[in-house]
Formats: sequence, structure tokens, C-alpha cells
Amino acid sequence: MVTTGLTGAFAPVVTPFAADGSPDTTRFIAHARWLVAQGAGLAPFGTNSEANSLTLAERRALLEALVAAGIPPAKLLPGTGACSAGEAAELSRHAVELGCAGVLMLPPFFYKGISDEGLYAWYADVIARVGDARLKVYLYHIPALSGVPITHGVIARLLKDFPGTVVGIKDSSGDWDNLAAMLERFPELEIFPASESFISRTRPLGARGCISATVNINPARISQLVQAWSSAEGPALQAEVDQLRKIVQGFPMIAALKEVIAKDLDDPAWQRVRPPLTGLSAEQSSALHAALQAIDFKLA
Amino acid sequence: MVTTGLTGAFAPVVTPFAADGSPDTTRFIAHARWLVAQGAGLAPFGTNSEANSLTLAERRALLEALVAAGIPPAKLLPGTGACSAGEAAELSRHAVELGCAGVLMLPPFFYKGISDEGLYAWYADVIARVGDARLKVYLYHIPALSGVPITHGVIARLLKDFPGTVVGIKDSSGDWDNLAAMLERFPELEIFPASESFISRTRPLGARGCISATVNINPARISQLVQAWSSAEGPALQAEVDQLRKIVQGFPMIAALKEVIAKDLDDPAWQRVRPPLTGLSAEQSSALHAALQAIDFKLA
Repeated sequence: MVTTGLTGAFAPVVTPFAADGSPDTTRFIAHARWLVAQGAGLAPFGTNSEANSLTLAERRALLEALVAAGIPPAKLLPGTGACSAGEAAELSRHAVELGCAGVLMLPPFFYKGISDEGLYAWYADVIARVGDARLKVYLYHIPALSGVPITHGVIARLLKDFPGTVVGIKDSSGDWDNLAAMLERFPELEIFPASESFISRTRPLGARGCISATVNINPARISQLVQAWSSAEGPALQAEVDQLRKIVQGFPMIAALKEVIAKDLDDPAWQRVRPPLTGLSAEQSSALHAALQAIDFKLA
Repeated sequence: MVTTGLTGAFAPVVTPFAADGSPDTTRFIAHARWLVAQGAGLAPFGTNSEANSLTLAERRALLEALVAAGIPPAKLLPGTGACSAGEAAELSRHAVELGCAGVLMLPPFFYKGISDEGLYAWYADVIARVGDARLKVYLYHIPALSGVPITHGVIARLLKDFPGTVVGIKDSSGDWDNLAAMLERFPELEIFPASESFISRTRPLGARGCISATVNINPARISQLVQAWSSAEGPALQAEVDQLRKIVQGFPMIAALKEVIAKDLDDPAWQRVRPPLTGLSAEQSSALHAALQAIDFKLA
């Protein structure tokens, strides 16, 4: 198994908002610190962070706040995707300069039916604009939201032309066949499934862990599973994290994560989401808490 | 028929790029001036402008360049959409301050399965952030690319709550039923189909003209049709503009428009597109020019 690069459970850190709608830096840092203390890595500005509802300036300021608060940059894999190569490069350069372990990069997600040639050229353009050998790009494959799949042809070409720069991928397709095919074809690629449910199946094949929404509320057990999947307690641990995952993904994910945190901290401010998302209805909220209570779930 | 607001054929102005990939302001202004001289209005930073491949700073600079070059702001309907309400508001405020007739605003296009409540709240948030009574919002319905349809429920609520601010819509769905239903239900809404092919059918029902890709290469005739659809020459004019439209939409639209301009001006610089788009292949280019030659087409 390859031993360089990243391993672990990463949380696409949810972003709290103040009453006026601005990012709540204090709560953001507190949550990030707790996640790291529980053993997780941080992938702020992912889908579950409402990254695309933040301005570039807000994303930069929040990342700087994390580093200033003492979060080790080696634990940081911020999302730096944007539709324009110029803005993706600006965010990526900023992350590199802060010493982040890598960046998680969406494809440009407005135009659809993009050719492999065009998608390759876009990533190549961003890499050239960053122009820094320290850049480590983790591709972000999430076709259901981006509408732009990152094909194996594009991955192969990027790995060949940018060795040591394009190093990994987060696969949010939920498609086992895609995951298995990438693990087989690209042994040098650091592959992170987007759900902890794949850990025991993919770790023996070389996957690095996961970058998963639910790491926001279950960081210790998921981080433990990434390390201990092959131990005697592995199967029970997998079943346990699967049980929580299954409950939470029955609800709108981002609102559900924030609801769980708000309830546990007795802090309703955590419920806020930015439009176009909406919070859980009272019914959804009750159903979520009842299901969690039934499995005796608590934030660690 | 309502007589306030905008009427006419608007071009989502294609954006030329220099050899280093930066926006080519000189060619952009020249093209914009030509379009206005031919009778068209300008909707820069639309889908066909590669707006989402431009940075916010590039969009602001290009809009300022148009106004500085003497393009009347009353002719300008710039696209100011962005996934984040903060950035959509920043671009919209900038356009208002420059005196633009209105702004064309995409919905936030990353998250999918957005509720009416969430989409309404997002537009309301942008309007509040701009905080300027001069703002005139034209909604931009383009579900095939945005993945976020603007439903009639959302339109109705925005018209009720923001009268005089939410004033129009560009409908790029290509769906006649949607167009007909909106024309019937929202007589106060300034409706612009995204193709000149709908002009003769929708003008008698109250549509204002069109905001169409091909206005970039056929501004005079399409502008003429918007005014003269009911005259004796209307049917022949409609057939003529339809013929060109049909040819061009058989190719990747943005690359095809740029290819036509490059050929006519004998200026290959116009062929450049930004990744993730790609130019026409040699075969596509030959086929396009052959088809245009067969109808004896020339830029006016």
C-alpha cells in the first residue's frame, strides 16, 4: 500500500451563520477544533459546507481564521473549486500559501456535455495559473450536483502530465463500479469515497479513508474505522457507523447535520443555512431526533 | 400591450480572448458597438458570453469598458448571476451603479432539487443585499444548464413581493408550453424567449423580443423582426432568421458564433474559447461555413 499522501476521515466542515447571514467564525473554529481533537481531518468548503453559497472573500477569510486558530495546515484539504479557472486558481494559490495539505477541486460546473479535452484543459489551466510545485490537487467527482463527470480518461491524462500535482480524488458518485474501477486502474491515486460505508470494502483495495458529510457528527468512530477496519472490531465498527449514516442521509443532509449539532450543543444558531437551502421542517427535525435517540446517539 | 420596460433583440455578447487567455477588451468593444449600430441590445455575461468562465473582476472590468466606450447603459442587460447571493449582489449593484437597464440573473446553480421556498429566499436575499430601488431583475430560466428551474410559483411570489424590481424573465427552456403559460399567467412580466424562432408566435401574446445567441451574428434582421413581425414582410423575415438559426444550432453554439465572426472579419483570434469549452474541429468548421455559404450568409 502506498504510504505517502493523505489518509483518514475528513469532514466537509459545515459552515455556521450568524443572525445577519454572515459566516460565524467563532462557531466555525470551535467545530473545526473539536473535529481535529476527535481525530478527523478537515475538508472545509465542500458541498456540505455550502461552499458555493459563500463568496470568495468569505472562503479566504474563513480558511485564514482556521490557520490563525492553530488548526494544523497539514490537516486541511479545502475545497477551491469555482466555475472560472481564474477563481479556482486564486483560491488554490491561497490554500497553498497557507500550507494546506492539498485542495479539493470541483470541475467547472455550469456548462454541461463537456468533452474530456475541455475538462483536461480547464484543470491544466488552473494548475498553470497557480504555478506552484507545492500544489496537490484532489479532484472532486460529484456528477449529481456538478453535472460534469470526471472521466477515467481525464484522470489518466492529468496523472500522466501532472505527476505529484494531481494526486487524488473524492468520489461522491456513490457508484461502486466507478470506485472499484479507479482503485484498480490508478493505484497511485489517493482515493477517498464520499461515505464511510465504503471504508471496509475499499481500504483493502488501497482507498485512503473517506471525505464524508457525517464525519461532521461522528468523527471519532469513523476515524477509528479508517485505521482499524481489518482488526477484530472492524465489522462491528463498520455496522455502527453505517447505522448513523443511514439515518442522517434520510434527511436533507446539510440541514440535518446542523440540526444534530444545534441540538447537542443546545445552540439553535447552528440551525441556520443559507438560501437556496432551507432548514428542516418541524416534522423532519422530530423524526431525525427520534431516530437518533433510538440508537442512543450523542456527539462524542 | 405593455409599453414600459425593455423590447428588442438582445445579444448575449460573445467574449473574445487574447493569446494569453485574458479577455480581449478591444475586440469586445468593437463587437458590442457593431451590435448596437445594427439595432440590437446587449446582454453581456450570458451563457454564450462564457460568463461563468470569467472571474468577477473580469466581468466588472468588461462592463465598465463597455460604458466607458460609449455604449448606452440603457442598452445593457448584463448577466449578474453567481452561486453565492453575495457575489450576485455585488455584480448587480455594480450594474445598477453604471446605469444598466436591468440585470439578467441565473438562479444559484450548484445545489439541485432546490425548493420554491429556498429559491425565492435566495432571490430575496440578493435583492436585499443590493438595496437599490433602481434594480431591475430579469430572471434567467435555463434548466438544462443551471439544473434549477424557476417555477411559476417562484415567479408569482417574486412579482408580488418585489413589484417594479423583479420585472422580466429570459426563458431558455425551449419549452413552448412554459412560454405560453407564462405569457398567459404573468402579463406584467417582460418575457424574452431565448430564440428568435419564437418571435412571431410570442410577440402577439406580449413577449418583448428575444435574448438569443444568434443575435451576435444576425442582429439587424432579428431586431427588425421584433418590430415588424406583424407587417407584410413578417413571415418571410421569420423564415429567413429561422434558417440561419437552424444551421448554427447544429454546432456547439459558442464556438460556432466565434468561428463565424472570425471568418467574416478574417481574424482567427476570434476563434478562442476558454476551457472547459473547445473550438470547432476542422470538420465542423468546414461544415458550418459550407452551410452558411449555401444560404449566402454574411455578417451585415
